[in-house]
Amino acid sequence: MANVLVTGGGRGLGLGLVRLLASLPVSTISKVFVTTRGKPSEDLTKIIETSGGRVINVECEVVDAASVKRAAAEVEGKLGGEGLDILINNAAMSGNYPQGIRNMAAEEMLQEFNVNVASTHRVTAAFIPLLQQGKQKKIAMVSSSAGSISWANRYSFSPAYAYKITKAAMNMMAVQYAIEYEKDGFTFLTLSPGWLKTTMGGDMADLDVETGAKATWDIVNKADKSYNGKFYNIHVPGWEHNEGVNQYDGLEIPW
Amino acid sequence: MANVLVTGGGRGLGLGLVRLLASLPVSTISKVFVTTRGKPSEDLTKIIETSGGRVINVECEVVDAASVKRAAAEVEGKLGGEGLDILINNAAMSGNYPQGIRNMAAEEMLQEFNVNVASTHRVTAAFIPLLQQGKQKKIAMVSSSAGSISWANRYSFSPAYAYKITKAAMNMMAVQYAIEYEKDGFTFLTLSPGWLKTTMGGDMADLDVETGAKATWDIVNKADKSYNGKFYNIHVPGWEHNEGVNQYDGLEIPW
Repeated sequence: MANVLVTGGGRGLGLGLVRLLASLPVSTISKVFVTTRGKPSEDLTKIIETSGGRVINVECEVVDAASVKRAAAEVEGKLGGEGLDILINNAAMSGNYPQGIRNMAAEEMLQEFNVNVASTHRVTAAFIPLLQQGKQKKIAMVSSSAGSISWANRYSFSPAYAYKITKAAMNMMAVQYAIEYEKDGFTFLTLSPGWLKTTMGGDMADLDVETGAKATWDIVNKADKSYNGKFYNIHVPGWEHNEGVNQYDGLEIPW
Repeated sequence: MANVLVTGGGRGLGLGLVRLLASLPVSTISKVFVTTRGKPSEDLTKIIETSGGRVINVECEVVDAASVKRAAAEVEGKLGGEGLDILINNAAMSGNYPQGIRNMAAEEMLQEFNVNVASTHRVTAAFIPLLQQGKQKKIAMVSSSAGSISWANRYSFSPAYAYKITKAAMNMMAVQYAIEYEKDGFTFLTLSPGWLKTTMGGDMADLDVETGAKATWDIVNKADKSYNGKFYNIHVPGWEHNEGVNQYDGLEIPW
């Protein structure tokens, strides 16, 4: 019986994860908290309405420290003395700069850093006290294999420079947290959910959201303390040797 | 005969580099441009005054895009039709967060990203046209081995979380530039100048500024195109096997 929180659950991978978690038995998943920037999307509302109270929306603007603190207080109240077991830091953004890296506005890169790194920090910092009271103390950082500096040549086709730069930064932040909270029994798992057919990923992507969400949950669910501070690909059977870009082999990704 | 620009030359490693470059023969170093946030420091002023016009101060606030553009125009004017051969992106900041990563203000991390990454981008983008006219087309990114995610455990003693996070981001940015400008003959070299006895490094550091500046210049000077997109330690003879933290072996650092 795990209580889980997913950030950025209005659409895309976050929505897919919430849909999947809501379909699991109560013996596995107790409550699913899902943050959205404003009112929940129509798709999310449907999941909430048919969840029998298990899926709970929490409005949260992750770039606003006060909003994140209010969200943590709201989740604490709704947990009614229970802890939070798993936090999935999923909220993120990605801009495209087809005019080349030199012409990317520094202010746009700053904004992506604010959303993808500083906000993940705000959320993580605010929810750690609730995770301290949980049984699993697991924090999944949804990164991207495009954030692997070692693999940068594979993604040279992509003009999402700020996304790659900020995901590399988030990877380092995850490792800093992993080192600091290992003694408290935490597991910080950094993962690449693959290239998914979402608004961010586009129609050319490899996998549909359902497949990506299932494989993401599989690795989050199975990750034990040996995953702390490490960076993994999801595992999608049949896609292990996808040529070139992504490999869905469930193995570690080099930094 | 190379024209070189060093950012953040008022003190520390930047000042050490300018002092060294000013001491080299004109047959090696023609002009040395050095950016400072305001008026040059007393130490830098002395170097400028005894340089016979070879060391030229350019006021530049690197977080301000307009200031960076003005600086590039000023350097262009002073080059009088010559190109810029080497840009050393040295300006950086580092905060300390001894209260632990969770209590680091997200806004402070954002500020470090602005100085260490977004500003390096502003400077690089603004000076590339002058480097295109230069013979060497070499851009050195002064990073840190503390920005190596693979080596994070070595630096777990240091609460400079935002420094480590933003240097990892800068490393990815350097690789993005390296990939994009390889076809134009550029060399983007990322380097760790070691732990130096500067205001940033503190008195406990390994090396004095002069030693660090010499070894930094040595690798910048010798780097050919095979260094493009790679991350190197400086080489300090006798310090190759420094136990534990830094290794001054002149070899590649894993990301």
